[in-house]
Formats: sequence, structure tokens, C-alpha cells
Amino acid sequence: MIKQALILQDHIRTLHDNRLFEFSVIAIILLSALLIGVKTYDFDPMFINALAFFDVAITVFFLFEIVLRFIACQDKKRFFNNAWNIFDTLIVTVSLLPFDESEFAFLARLIRVFRVLRLISVIPELRVLVNALIRSLPSMAYVLLLMFILFYMYAAVGSFLFERINPILWGDISISMLTLFRVVTFEDWTDVMYETMSVYPLSWMYYLSFIFFNAFVFLNMMIGIVIGKMQEEGNLEQASEHAAEVKDTHSLLQEISNRLDKIEKKID
Amino acid sequence: MIKQALILQDHIRTLHDNRLFEFSVIAIILLSALLIGVKTYDFDPMFINALAFFDVAITVFFLFEIVLRFIACQDKKRFFNNAWNIFDTLIVTVSLLPFDESEFAFLARLIRVFRVLRLISVIPELRVLVNALIRSLPSMAYVLLLMFILFYMYAAVGSFLFERINPILWGDISISMLTLFRVVTFEDWTDVMYETMSVYPLSWMYYLSFIFFNAFVFLNMMIGIVIGKMQEEGNLEQASEHAAEVKDTHSLLQEISNRLDKIEKKID
Amino acid sequence: MIKQALILQDHIRTLHDNRLFEFSVIAIILLSALLIGVKTYDFDPMFINALAFFDVAITVFFLFEIVLRFIACQDKKRFFNNAWNIFDTLIVTVSLLPFDESEFAFLARLIRVFRVLRLISVIPELRVLVNALIRSLPSMAYVLLLMFILFYMYAAVGSFLFERINPILWGDISISMLTLFRVVTFEDWTDVMYETMSVYPLSWMYYLSFIFFNAFVFLNMMIGIVIGKMQEEGNLEQASEHAAEVKDTHSLLQEISNRLDKIEKKID
Amino acid sequence: MIKQALILQDHIRTLHDNRLFEFSVIAIILLSALLIGVKTYDFDPMFINALAFFDVAITVFFLFEIVLRFIACQDKKRFFNNAWNIFDTLIVTVSLLPFDESEFAFLARLIRVFRVLRLISVIPELRVLVNALIRSLPSMAYVLLLMFILFYMYAAVGSFLFERINPILWGDISISMLTLFRVVTFEDWTDVMYETMSVYPLSWMYYLSFIFFNAFVFLNMMIGIVIGKMQEEGNLEQASEHAAEVKDTHSLLQEISNRLDKIEKKID
Repeated sequence: MIKQALILQDHIRTLHDNRLFEFSVIAIILLSALLIGVKTYDFDPMFINALAFFDVAITVFFLFEIVLRFIACQDKKRFFNNAWNIFDTLIVTVSLLPFDESEFAFLARLIRVFRVLRLISVIPELRVLVNALIRSLPSMAYVLLLMFILFYMYAAVGSFLFERINPILWGDISISMLTLFRVVTFEDWTDVMYETMSVYPLSWMYYLSFIFFNAFVFLNMMIGIVIGKMQEEGNLEQASEHAAEVKDTHSLLQEISNRLDKIEKKID
Repeated sequence: MIKQALILQDHIRTLHDNRLFEFSVIAIILLSALLIGVKTYDFDPMFINALAFFDVAITVFFLFEIVLRFIACQDKKRFFNNAWNIFDTLIVTVSLLPFDESEFAFLARLIRVFRVLRLISVIPELRVLVNALIRSLPSMAYVLLLMFILFYMYAAVGSFLFERINPILWGDISISMLTLFRVVTFEDWTDVMYETMSVYPLSWMYYLSFIFFNAFVFLNMMIGIVIGKMQEEGNLEQASEHAAEVKDTHSLLQEISNRLDKIEKKID
Repeated sequence: MIKQALILQDHIRTLHDNRLFEFSVIAIILLSALLIGVKTYDFDPMFINALAFFDVAITVFFLFEIVLRFIACQDKKRFFNNAWNIFDTLIVTVSLLPFDESEFAFLARLIRVFRVLRLISVIPELRVLVNALIRSLPSMAYVLLLMFILFYMYAAVGSFLFERINPILWGDISISMLTLFRVVTFEDWTDVMYETMSVYPLSWMYYLSFIFFNAFVFLNMMIGIVIGKMQEEGNLEQASEHAAEVKDTHSLLQEISNRLDKIEKKID
Repeated sequence: MIKQALILQDHIRTLHDNRLFEFSVIAIILLSALLIGVKTYDFDPMFINALAFFDVAITVFFLFEIVLRFIACQDKKRFFNNAWNIFDTLIVTVSLLPFDESEFAFLARLIRVFRVLRLISVIPELRVLVNALIRSLPSMAYVLLLMFILFYMYAAVGSFLFERINPILWGDISISMLTLFRVVTFEDWTDVMYETMSVYPLSWMYYLSFIFFNAFVFLNMMIGIVIGKMQEEGNLEQASEHAAEVKDTHSLLQEISNRLDKIEKKID
């Protein structure tokens, strides 16, 4: 049975690699997703029915594929060690749940929205991107923590100095942090600044130093982290290749040395 | 005839590499393009006529060059396999179409605008950039697809929670996606946020998490893709060079080893 | 005593590396910090008391750790040569200062805010980031100086040309520099531009050239500096590794050469 | 005389490398520059006089340094081949021009502003940055040219479609390009979009595609250029080092080969 599953899988993979097939699948998933969102336009009911049919067909097709993958997997336990297998199974199962919109309106809606995640199951390149995203999360978390400290210190100073000027923006530290985030996104930040500058004329230093610290230095640090990761991986690959070459050279040199040993002995 | 074309082509290439010639051509194309756009200023009619003359002269010159390139090409079929050759021929042909503004106002205008694309034909560096652009499109497309999923999920939640607060911004999923794009560009995003915060005080988490996911993580991913591509190319070049050197060293060592073989035999 | 301190330090390091321990410490510090900022919410007093207790416990724990580190350090003078040791001692000491909020409201508040810096003491990854930040400050300073020159020149021109149009924005050079910073952050910059364009229709060139110079060229330079630093470090590591390998190969080749010398002599 | 100049130059270089000296010079230039800009504050006249004195002293000092550099230069013609020497001479000469503010108010002001450029003469790191800036200008120019083509095509479409809706924003191609630049900087771009969407509901595609093309693809291209330049330089250095090592290895191998030749002959 595993054999037959593997042969079937091969056929499916060929279908998968077909560009036209991939594009149709992506187009159908995207169109189905967008159709939920758009209420106001009037579409041909035949078009909607055809789309709904193909949408279900895709889900059934991927259910079939996952079942095949499961059968072809020799160690059934290892199948569920792969997070992507669990993800695929979950998405396909939930997408097939038969909820009527009239009964469970909210749940039915949620499932429909959920279905757009099939795109990640369908397109291997998206998995690579998501993997890279997840891998970079820890270093991002540390940068965010450092940014939190910076925001917190500035917000403490800000709420202390500017609370009397505008309690809506600088009422307490948490509100001040939101205001500072607004300043960092440059959203009407000059209004915030001009207001406090009417009381403290030098308060532009507060805003400018904050913007500089955040927008310039921290952005650079983030880029630095990304580059660091990239370089690391690149170097590791290069290094392992290089190590193999050096080993080759050294073994050749060792051989020459051994042969010289023999020659010396013979001469003696 | 191919011979004569090649000689002529050489002369033209010399002219092409002339800095002054290149600058004049770019200046004339840019000036002609800008002249269509500016209605209000009054220019000397002689200046406009001279510019129009040089503009046609450039087009004729490039028509001549393409014809030469075509004649010099030994395999006429391969000439049109190169996308740039087709692009050049199209641009020059269309630029020379004799449409009178009085008859086909729209078409004449379109062709005039189209003529600015001659810049890409004229400047080889622009072709390199356009090539790089086209090559990076597939990975960009995947990032955009992932962003679409993120926008879609957030828009679904947003339209569900905030529809009653402001149906103009959160009416359905597609409108919510446009509103979220506005949030991502930081365009009056605090107005959108403060409005929903008056009903859901914790809705700032919705906006901040969305901004973080998009502006930070995804930007990094895009940079990552670009760097990845750059590094890939750089490493490939370096690796092939390096491999050749290692092969040289190894063949030399092998030769020494063989010679030692001979010496050993002679001693015996 | 140093021995016992070293053993105890080992135990503490094991505790430190415990993920659960680290997360709890970070969570407690963050929660304590946020609790100062939030006045409006009502929390369970038992929760607040427990949090305060754990907060003090963490500080005492880190005081204990620093004392251990100091005892374990063989050269007491070198302990304070490390800036991070001074930083940790300062943070912990200040965090333990017993100021009552009723007496010294401002000082007590400042100390409370100060406590969030314990995060940098707790998380080694944050120290790495802060170190990288400090190291990149000099090159940043030079870029800022260059930007200052650019701002200053444009501000001088701006205040000369536009002072009569709007003295609030272009009154003197220092105010013009603030206005230009606003333009660079794209904050209602078109309002500033349209106002001067009504008098000088070509003044868009002033703004566009300024934005281009800043946003494009200088951003690239900053990225360049970061990349330069990264590449430098990466190359240095690679280069030193590579140099060691080349030396190995060369010494092996030299050895073979020497052995051939001997063989030659023996044959003679 | 050249000899004495060289000895004096050495002394001056020692003074130059003095951190305190460098900082004082930078501080004085910056303070003098800012003093022109600030009219409203009242400063101690003694402070202003002292600053003015030191400011002139610095200029005289740098005049003295340039004269020394000129004397020490053996080929007087080559001295002015270096663009930085011309720049320094110009800055110092203009800074010393004795214009009275009462007579030539505008010129005197211009010269004062000009003096801030002495910073570039004083700080060698700024010259490195300016050099890098100038070197990256050509590739930037090509990117700008490509962006111009994109802006121009979109502006042509925009002025054709939206002219009736709002002639102030979409009156002709050049005005449309300015509006598109505003859209690219995200400055109230949703107002521009919502206005045209009331007539053409699908016009969001026009804006979104334009923003994507510009903000995403072109930014990446710019980063690509910078990285390309950096990598190029890094690789060149690495490659030349590597080539030297390979040459060393090969010469050692050649030596071994020659020695084997001799041994073979002797055995024969």
C-alpha cells in the first residue's frame, strides 16, 4: 500500500509542478477569499457556483494528497512531528467542516476566512518565507524588548513633564507610550510637539532625540540582525565546503609524505 | 552586407560611448517628455521646433541602429528571441507612427507618452536595472501573497469587530483591507485607532500588532530576499573561481605523487 | 571563599539558563513596570502585592548574584573595569533604595522607572544589542554631522527665501531646520510646500532635492555603514581561519621539500 | 623650506589627532553656525566675542595648515589636482573675506553660512562619507531616471483620467507627477485616493500599484546597488589576498617539482 501511495504521490507531484495547475489553484483560493469580503458587487450566480465547486474540489484534492502523504510515510509517528503536516491536516479538516451560515453565522464566517491559509499549504515558497519569519522571531523579540525600555523611559519623562499640558496624550505612562509610538510613525507628530513647545520651548530635543534613537539606530540594528543571520548561514555553507577541500589537499600531502618515507627507507 | 553593417555598427558604438552624445540624447528625450506635460508656460516657438526636430532625429537614429543590428545579426530568428530587441523595435516603430493630434487626440497623446520609454533603449544601465527588477519579481510576488494573507485575516477580524463603529472604513473585508493598508502607510492611522478605542479600549493591540507584523518583520523579509539574491550570485562566482584553483593545486599534487611513483620504481 | 562562590555561581547559571525562570523574571519586571504606568485600571490588591513581592525578590536575587560575581572575581580592581559590572551594581543598588512615595514623590517615581533597566542586566542578548549600538555610535555621529551641514545650508537658503511668506516656519535658521526636519518626516510637508509655491512656483525643487538628498542618499549611507561593519567582522573571522589553513598547507609542503633535500643528499 | 614645512606639518598632525583639540574645533564651528541662526535668545556679549575670536582663530589655523601643505607638496601642480585641496583652499579663503554686514548684507550672510563647510575640511571621516556619496551618485542617477519614467507614465494616465475630478492635483502631467510624489511620501494620500474613488471606484488599484512599484521594488533596487558596491569592494580585497596565497602555494609546489626533477636525473 505504501508503494502504491508513493506512485500516486509521484503523479500528484507532477501535477503540482505544473504551472497552470498551480496558478489556477491560487486564483481559485484568492477569488473565493475575496468573494466573502465583497458584498456590494453583483456577480453572475453561475460564476459563484462554479467558484464554490472548484473551491471544494481543491480542498478535497488536498485532503486526498495529505492522506496519500500519510500512507506513504513509513513512520506514522514522525508524520505528526513535522509541524507543516499538522498545519495542513488542520487547515484541510477545518475547511471541510459543514457549517451552515444560517445556524452558526460567526463560526461559518471564521472557517471561510481560515480557508485562505490553504495558500500556505499549496505554495512551498510561502512555507520557506514563514519558516524564515519564525526563525527570526527571537532576535526580533529582543529588539522589541530594548525598544520597550526606550519607549518606557521616554514615556516616564514625557508623562511627568507634559501631563499638565495635555492629559489625553500624556495622562499616564501607558498612554504616553502610545503617543510616542504615534510620534515614531510620524503621524501628526508636529502637532504633539508644537503643543508642548509652547510651554517648554526646548522640548523639540525630547522628540528629535527619541525619533533619532528609534528610527535610525534601531532600524539599523534590525537590518544588522537580518544581515547577521544571512551571513551566518552563507558562511556555514561556504565553510563546510571549504573544510572538505582543505581535507582533500591534506590527505594528498599525507600520501606524498608516506611515499617519501618509503623512498627514504629503500635508499637506506 | 553583414560585414558593412558590422563596420557601421562599430562607428555607431563609438558615437554611443561618447558622453556628450549620450547626455544630449537623454536631455532631448526628457525635455520632449516634459514639454507635453507643461501647458501653462510659454516657450519660444523656435526652441519647441528645434526640440521636436531633434526628437524625431533621435528616433530615426535609433531606427537606423536597430536596422543595422538586425542586418548584422547572422541568425535572423534569434534576433527576435532577445526581448530587448523586440522592445526597441516596438518603441521606435510606435514613436514614428504619424498620428495627428487633431484626429486621434487620445492615441497621439498615448504615443507621445510612450516615447519616454526610448530612455530604456538608449541607456544600457537602465536595462540592467529593469532586468534585476524583473528577476526579483517572483520572490516579491510570494512576499505580497503572504502579506495578502496577513491583511485578509486582520481585515476579517476588523470588519467583524469594527463594522458597527464605522461602516465606511470597516464595511466589508475588502474595504477593511484598504483601511489596513492606510494604517500600514501611517496615513491618519491614529484617527482610525482612536475611533475604535472609544468602544474597545484595547483595540490599540490590533493596530500595533498589525503594524509590527507588517512594517518590521515583512520589511526585513524583503531585505532578506534581496540580500539572499546578491549573496547567491556573489558566492557562485567566488565558488567557481575557488573550485578552479583547488583543482589546479590538486592536479599539481597528483603530478608530484606520480613522479614519486616513478622514482620509487627506478630505485627498485 | 572564591571556590565556594564559583560553585554557587555555577548553580545560579544553571538556574539562569532555565527558560521558565528567565521568562518569569522578564514577565515580573515588565508587569511591575507597566503597573506604575497604568492608573485607571483596578487590579486585585493581592495580585499587586504578590507582584511587588516577586519584584523585590528578583532584585535581591540579582544583588546576591552580583556579590557572588564580585567574590568569584580574583582581581577585585578588574571587576569594576567591566562597564557592565558597574551598570549592574548601580541598577540593583538604586532599585533597592527605600524611598517612600509620600516623601520624595519625584525621586521614588524616577527609581521605579529606573528599575526597568534590570531587563538589560537579566538578558545577555540585550547586552549584545546595546554593545553593538554603542559601537555603531561614532559612525552614526559623523553621518548626523553631515546631515546637520545639509540641513543648515538648506535652512539658511529657506529662511532667506521664505521668511516673508511664513515667519512661524521660516523665521530664522534654527526654526527652518525644525521645519526641514518636519519635511523629511513627510509630516504635512505638502502644506509647507504649497504655501511657498504660491509665491515661488519652482520652490518644489527646493523640497524635492532636499528630500532626495536626505531620504535616499543618506539612508543608503547609513545602511552602508552598518553593512560595512558587519562585513568587516565577518571577513576578519573568515580571513584569520583561512590564514591558519594556508599556513598549515605551506608548512606541510615545506616539510616535503625538506625531506626531498635529505633524499637528494643520501643519493649523492 | 619643504623640509621645515614637513616638520611643522608633523607637529600640526599631532595636534590634529588630539581628541580634545578636534572636539573644541567642531564645537566652535557648530556654535558659530548656530549663533547666526538664532536671533531671539540673548547671550552674554563676552561669550559671543570669545566665540567669534576662536572662530577666526580656527580659520587662520587652517589657512596656515593649507599653506604648509602646499609648501610641503613637491609638485605644486599636483596639489590642485586633488579636489579636496581646492575645496579646503576655497572654504578658508571665502571664510576670511572681510565683508561688513551693513554693506553687503546678503553676501555676508552667505559667507557665514558657507563657513559651516569647514567641518568637512576638519573631519577626515566626513570626507570619506562625502567621497562614498559622490561615488554612489551615478548609480543613484540611473535609479532616479527609471523612477522618472515610472512617475511620468503614471502621471500621464492620472492626468488623463482624473483631470476633470480635481484639476489642481491632476491638471497636467507635471502637476500630476508632484501629486504622485505626494502619494509616494504617504502625505494625505488617502484624501487624493478617496476623491477619485468616488468617480472611479477601482482607482485604488492605480494608487496601490504605484505605491508598490515605488516603495517596494525601487527601494529594494537602491539597497541592491549599495550592497552591490560594498560586496564588490569587499570581494576585490579578498580576491587579491587569496590570489597571493594561491601563488605562494603554487611556487612551493613548483620548487618540489624541480627538486624531484633533479633527483630523477641523479638516479638515472
